[in-house]
Amino acid sequence: MAPVGPPRSGDAIFSSIDRVNAELFTLTYGAIVRQLLTDLEEVEEVNKQLDQMGYNIGIRLIDEFLAKSGVSRCVDFRETAEMIAKVGFKMFLGVTASVTSWDADGTCCSIVLEDNPLVDFVELPDTCQGLYYCNVLSGVIRGALEMVSMKTEVTWTRDVLRGDDAYELQVKLLKQVAEEYPYKDDE
Amino acid sequence: MAPVGPPRSGDAIFSSIDRVNAELFTLTYGAIVRQLLTDLEEVEEVNKQLDQMGYNIGIRLIDEFLAKSGVSRCVDFRETAEMIAKVGFKMFLGVTASVTSWDADGTCCSIVLEDNPLVDFVELPDTCQGLYYCNVLSGVIRGALEMVSMKTEVTWTRDVLRGDDAYELQVKLLKQVAEEYPYKDDE
Repeated sequence: MAPVGPPRSGDAIFSSIDRVNAELFTLTYGAIVRQLLTDLEEVEEVNKQLDQMGYNIGIRLIDEFLAKSGVSRCVDFRETAEMIAKVGFKMFLGVTASVTSWDADGTCCSIVLEDNPLVDFVELPDTCQGLYYCNVLSGVIRGALEMVSMKTEVTWTRDVLRGDDAYELQVKLLKQVAEEYPYKDDE
Repeated sequence: MAPVGPPRSGDAIFSSIDRVNAELFTLTYGAIVRQLLTDLEEVEEVNKQLDQMGYNIGIRLIDEFLAKSGVSRCVDFRETAEMIAKVGFKMFLGVTASVTSWDADGTCCSIVLEDNPLVDFVELPDTCQGLYYCNVLSGVIRGALEMVSMKTEVTWTRDVLRGDDAYELQVKLLKQVAEEYPYKDDE
């Protein structure tokens, strides 16, 4: 699959695709979390389930990302992380994110969200202190990256709902399976 | 609360509010339905739960509707139904709907959806034949109307996923509690 021109900006893509009201999405997501808390009881189980849901969403959302963004292949994990933050978050949630805290060998970084539509109007009761409310997002990233041959571990390192000053996800590349192409792009 | 100018069109509101990607919403909603089917087993229970979730969303979404639409009060149920179809569906899901099949005394009508972003890519397996996949929508309408003093019954009368040629909701006004105002608008 050769690139068809330069990748489009997240803003341009976001304004050209079908969208729904953010508050409806926020309330719908809240309804899922509430349902899981009722059904599963253990907060740790809810975290796992949200991550798994996110994974299932991510492995399908990557198709939409590739189809609409014009991004065809990233040269390395650094570029991949930038694409997630600058194009992916904008394209799906309408927010921007930044990549920080790279380790020396470029396999681990943090994605910091400037805004997080999932948590509007949310306050966690004391009984939910261990909950990672937005765990669906870490699952989405993990699932989407797995579809482009990158096995990752994605964990929340800061969470405003837990008293931190920002939303920050650590993304760690565990293994990259080299894709084999039958011919080179320039042949 | 006196009206502040004419109500805004659904299009105008929709383009001015925060939105998220429709596919993300569709996949997230699909994840809920799948989760409920796994947890509850009985399709009838899933229908009930989706409706209840929708109700919980509707009783909060009405605030956003009233705040953003400029609609303050409808003269009767007829006007209310038109507002849901023309402004509400556009504002929240980005689709338009039409109102048909009024009964003689103006207390029962159908809302027909031209498009339904909830069901993109959805196919129901044979084991889910009794499922009302979009039951969250009927719950949202019921919940929202209850907050403006209208008790309704909302049921699916046509559903493409069940082999019909459209999505059609029947909305039946059961009881309208007259609101009491301390003074008239024109005083």
